[in-house]
Amino acid sequence: MSFNTFGKIFRFTTWGESHGPAIGCVVDGCPPNITLSERDIQTDMDRRRPGKTKFTSQRKELDKVQILSGTFQGKTTGTPISMIIYNKDARSRDYETIKNKFRPGHADYTYLMKYGIRDYRGGGRQSARETASRVAAGAIAKNVLKKILGKKFKVVGGVIQLGILGCNKKNWNEKIIRKNPFFCPDKNSLKLWEKYLLAIRKAGSSCGAVIELRASGVPAGLGAPIYSKLDADLASALMSINAVKSVNIGAGINASLLSGEENSDEIKKVGNKTKFKSNNAGGILGGISSGQEIIASFGVKPTSSILNSRATIDKKGKSTRISVKGRHDPCVGIRAVPIGEAMMACVILDHYLLNRAQQG
Amino acid sequence: MSFNTFGKIFRFTTWGESHGPAIGCVVDGCPPNITLSERDIQTDMDRRRPGKTKFTSQRKELDKVQILSGTFQGKTTGTPISMIIYNKDARSRDYETIKNKFRPGHADYTYLMKYGIRDYRGGGRQSARETASRVAAGAIAKNVLKKILGKKFKVVGGVIQLGILGCNKKNWNEKIIRKNPFFCPDKNSLKLWEKYLLAIRKAGSSCGAVIELRASGVPAGLGAPIYSKLDADLASALMSINAVKSVNIGAGINASLLSGEENSDEIKKVGNKTKFKSNNAGGILGGISSGQEIIASFGVKPTSSILNSRATIDKKGKSTRISVKGRHDPCVGIRAVPIGEAMMACVILDHYLLNRAQQG
Amino acid sequence: MSFNTFGKIFRFTTWGESHGPAIGCVVDGCPPNITLSERDIQTDMDRRRPGKTKFTSQRKELDKVQILSGTFQGKTTGTPISMIIYNKDARSRDYETIKNKFRPGHADYTYLMKYGIRDYRGGGRQSARETASRVAAGAIAKNVLKKILGKKFKVVGGVIQLGILGCNKKNWNEKIIRKNPFFCPDKNSLKLWEKYLLAIRKAGSSCGAVIELRASGVPAGLGAPIYSKLDADLASALMSINAVKSVNIGAGINASLLSGEENSDEIKKVGNKTKFKSNNAGGILGGISSGQEIIASFGVKPTSSILNSRATIDKKGKSTRISVKGRHDPCVGIRAVPIGEAMMACVILDHYLLNRAQQG
Amino acid sequence: MSFNTFGKIFRFTTWGESHGPAIGCVVDGCPPNITLSERDIQTDMDRRRPGKTKFTSQRKELDKVQILSGTFQGKTTGTPISMIIYNKDARSRDYETIKNKFRPGHADYTYLMKYGIRDYRGGGRQSARETASRVAAGAIAKNVLKKILGKKFKVVGGVIQLGILGCNKKNWNEKIIRKNPFFCPDKNSLKLWEKYLLAIRKAGSSCGAVIELRASGVPAGLGAPIYSKLDADLASALMSINAVKSVNIGAGINASLLSGEENSDEIKKVGNKTKFKSNNAGGILGGISSGQEIIASFGVKPTSSILNSRATIDKKGKSTRISVKGRHDPCVGIRAVPIGEAMMACVILDHYLLNRAQQG
Repeated sequence: MSFNTFGKIFRFTTWGESHGPAIGCVVDGCPPNITLSERDIQTDMDRRRPGKTKFTSQRKELDKVQILSGTFQGKTTGTPISMIIYNKDARSRDYETIKNKFRPGHADYTYLMKYGIRDYRGGGRQSARETASRVAAGAIAKNVLKKILGKKFKVVGGVIQLGILGCNKKNWNEKIIRKNPFFCPDKNSLKLWEKYLLAIRKAGSSCGAVIELRASGVPAGLGAPIYSKLDADLASALMSINAVKSVNIGAGINASLLSGEENSDEIKKVGNKTKFKSNNAGGILGGISSGQEIIASFGVKPTSSILNSRATIDKKGKSTRISVKGRHDPCVGIRAVPIGEAMMACVILDHYLLNRAQQG
Repeated sequence: MSFNTFGKIFRFTTWGESHGPAIGCVVDGCPPNITLSERDIQTDMDRRRPGKTKFTSQRKELDKVQILSGTFQGKTTGTPISMIIYNKDARSRDYETIKNKFRPGHADYTYLMKYGIRDYRGGGRQSARETASRVAAGAIAKNVLKKILGKKFKVVGGVIQLGILGCNKKNWNEKIIRKNPFFCPDKNSLKLWEKYLLAIRKAGSSCGAVIELRASGVPAGLGAPIYSKLDADLASALMSINAVKSVNIGAGINASLLSGEENSDEIKKVGNKTKFKSNNAGGILGGISSGQEIIASFGVKPTSSILNSRATIDKKGKSTRISVKGRHDPCVGIRAVPIGEAMMACVILDHYLLNRAQQG
Repeated sequence: MSFNTFGKIFRFTTWGESHGPAIGCVVDGCPPNITLSERDIQTDMDRRRPGKTKFTSQRKELDKVQILSGTFQGKTTGTPISMIIYNKDARSRDYETIKNKFRPGHADYTYLMKYGIRDYRGGGRQSARETASRVAAGAIAKNVLKKILGKKFKVVGGVIQLGILGCNKKNWNEKIIRKNPFFCPDKNSLKLWEKYLLAIRKAGSSCGAVIELRASGVPAGLGAPIYSKLDADLASALMSINAVKSVNIGAGINASLLSGEENSDEIKKVGNKTKFKSNNAGGILGGISSGQEIIASFGVKPTSSILNSRATIDKKGKSTRISVKGRHDPCVGIRAVPIGEAMMACVILDHYLLNRAQQG
Repeated sequence: MSFNTFGKIFRFTTWGESHGPAIGCVVDGCPPNITLSERDIQTDMDRRRPGKTKFTSQRKELDKVQILSGTFQGKTTGTPISMIIYNKDARSRDYETIKNKFRPGHADYTYLMKYGIRDYRGGGRQSARETASRVAAGAIAKNVLKKILGKKFKVVGGVIQLGILGCNKKNWNEKIIRKNPFFCPDKNSLKLWEKYLLAIRKAGSSCGAVIELRASGVPAGLGAPIYSKLDADLASALMSINAVKSVNIGAGINASLLSGEENSDEIKKVGNKTKFKSNNAGGILGGISSGQEIIASFGVKPTSSILNSRATIDKKGKSTRISVKGRHDPCVGIRAVPIGEAMMACVILDHYLLNRAQQG
């Protein structure tokens, strides 16, 4: 069972509410003897952190991670790594006005239906604040993978669609991704995206996004058929991120439009290495990695917390309207980039460790 | 761990290879005292069974299910239900010519990379024949859900896109789905689809498909945040089906194109029932069911076994070409409909049972 | 969740009732490329099989195992190994007289309380017949361990106490164990035990037993603290065997009587190997193997099915008496020896595989 | 997988080392809407806390629990409950002298063999300090069970044997247990036990103990055959406690000495309630609760940290001797009482919740 725990061998358990004293994460099953410091984790935390640019929530959180266990003299010991992140800028008063109304698009109503009680402050446990813990776990996973697989391993994500605006994936450039507030890989899209998003924010509205993730340096042979296929686990990992409504592997939905000839990546030998002529499969065949780049994308719906008023009901069932004030991202999809990377890194490490167990 | 086991409380484990003596399934965690006969299961088996129409594989399998345990005097006892389906028409000779070559788009290469050995006959364990076991498990899940939730509960799937041809979802008609060989919900698409698929088969090629699943009669409150969200579990369940490359919940990828106002389903009261003005969320908010129809779709890539020749390598790494003979579906997506329904039924039942445990 | 499934990486799921058509087992997570035939398994099956001597049940079962999947050309493929054992000598009429009464010491009453329905024929799922499946799984585990760890690996069990009669463990002799119907390791006890057990059978009564298991050739470092300690998993594995009421590791309950000096096994170096002066710990410290012999014992209660009449109630709650006819073992503990060995082998293999995953 | 996580539905994950900044616990799957405060937990913490009497370690720890998540306005919300306990009196210098030697009876050697690294300060993760987290989780479990089952539910443990000294279980008196530093249920044993333990401490030695746990008010029908039997889960839970080497259910090892007639608890009807004439089964038949008192006992080995010198080796493999200074319990078994109660409460609650899911 895995309500708040993710993974099989490399597992993490997250806890905490948006407006409680802290949130955190316990990483279990991390290999021992891996160099690890809070600084290694903080770099990724800072990429997800709100309040850095005008395109994200203005909530001021340092998101400073503290490690409470599981390391000794700078190295992991194989025991659980507990991390804590204190909530600094939780303004609960912002939520008083909406404590009795269900916000459309949010899980206010469904949490109440399931649990019969809800912490309405900032969405409580439903808040995307939980994803900070995932980024912390993912940073550890990346660290381990780099030690095991070497520097050729990396996971990089970028926003390939902002609302109705796509970008040209042929211009994919990681340096560009690191330098713009949208994690956009295509230099040519930046200006338009900026204007577009500012207009949306000004209008009190919001938009969605599509994020593509690419992992290179992943060996062939990872994945556990039938019900822990690498792609099935990625699908679950990405769909579990707040506001995600779709997941694609490789060509994804577009694969359904291709012919058998076009879609099935032909195989060739280059030197003594097996290579493929294309990568519609996204590096996964039969749920097992092929040694190609692992490619997945996921679609994020537009932020549900918007200034513009919508119809809803209150706890007593009376019809009313709601306008969600507070400090919200006009496009939550942007900050989903480091979260997606973290989840992908965790899935890959998990299968890497699992695969060691499953050898003959 | 769950290599060949799916589910949490209602769990099934499948086993068997395409050309072994039999395949089968052990269903564990089924509630006791539910009326169950082999006939209840056979109906669904027959919907997935190959060889019935000219649009699917001509392999002649009766797919007759035998129950070996777990029932007593026609009722489930709460103990594991073991089911066996004998392979009748396994022509292993068809595969002799390809035993040393990797079929592009198939998992031949990746299975070998993972396990260092592979049963090449008909794809062995990678074969979609495994999905017959899923349909058997799903038939039991449906039976239980009907007893628990009443007749209002149903899961219905349809092919909404065949290769490059869509259909008009506004014409969704379950009676039509039951009467055409494509599980197409739109009467107006049938003729064109038939011509199109015959042409593809004649050309020795194949095409993909998109399947939509709709479950109605599902109560609000099902789903276990954060890492066993109802949609995350559906994503994993559907992505684990052979040849699936994408999963959407509700508006799915299209949600990324909408504005916050358009996307977030407004809430209203009709009589004393909570209703929504739209269902972009596909009946799931924050990973928990809202009481609306649960809607998911998944994209299937074109059949990788095609007559047309493609480049590949053999086991020794030498470049060669391959043309896959045998009896293959021109569009494996069609027979994925009952499989998708089965997986969705299993996920819903699993969460229904789990939710009973989690009440206050 | 693991109702009818045991293990983490090397997992088996059992199914079947005492008087159904068959029982069976699906082994998942077995490493690939291990030579495996039905004959390898049958040897162990025959050691547990009833009807061989006058000291066990006269039910005539061949317990012939058939492998239905998971091997190819005589080797495991890493996919699930399904095994089936048909029930041949199930005389359901023996149980007609007791179908409405609860047998004291059996789980008739508790199964009904849990499930609201029970298959009363031969105890249905509660029957020790289920353990045949465990022996089959254990035989595979032993096979794998012998390939991985070499011939120095073995698991041997013996009955060290039969009812009120102990034996001298200093005389432990594996050859003797293989040659007597009690699996007794001490030659000097055989005559007395034989007389004792015949007398008990003649009296229509039954007795208990204590079984000791010894595994040698197990490397140091296996076990996953805190909640999957090697000893905790052994305790669960052995306590799950029918009629077991106690488990000891190493000195076990006697460790509580020793002083700290006597109990803690002192450490020394012999050549370049770490050795211990004693083995009160049973080869496990902090839940991790030390490289010493793994020693565990478990106590089996006397057979609950006895001829002598006892007080009970019927399904309607009326007081009555019961005398259990049929073909029962006067001491079920005897046939528990191969079952205990099987469970220990499965636990050790599971932790061996798991440990490979957990390395730095 | 469950390295540092215990349970199925009601699950807790513990983290932290003896001499790190803090230890803690994340409880997941707790039912919502249960009143819970830090005070509810602290009462049990104080029973395990060291330094209270001269018979336990003089380490001064307040063991003050802080709840960081999972409650709202004094009630559980169904989301993870994170608890933290700061280490206050961790004197790492005590351990400098032994950082290169393996303490016999401890897991120093085996942790190093498994992980290749160890936090030697106070035993790091192997330390019994981890059990404070279990008591915190158990306190929540008790709270929930009292709300669900009413006041008739309770779990009480007592030390029934201190080293070589037993006590008369017929004198079992819960009031006495609460009032003496040994958790001894028999008034008549107190004086002798006190003298005995003081002598052992003065001698620089240690002794073992046997603890009995009794849970009343538990309904019939809890337990999940075959591999999650109530007794198998109890065995795993209790064996996972530091220094435990044996587990008994009901008559336990003594059941092996009884005849079938003596052992199998006869059944009768009293009013309209099913009763048993005895309770050798410890309230569990076929792995399912019978409605009787659940009785289990476990044996704890003598404290391995003793002043008296013993032979060992150092990290380089050189023979040496060791004498463990520091502040150790002469009998760790005493403080195991609240830990055992906690584990039993968690197992019972877990099966209670699970059983709700498994109904027909």
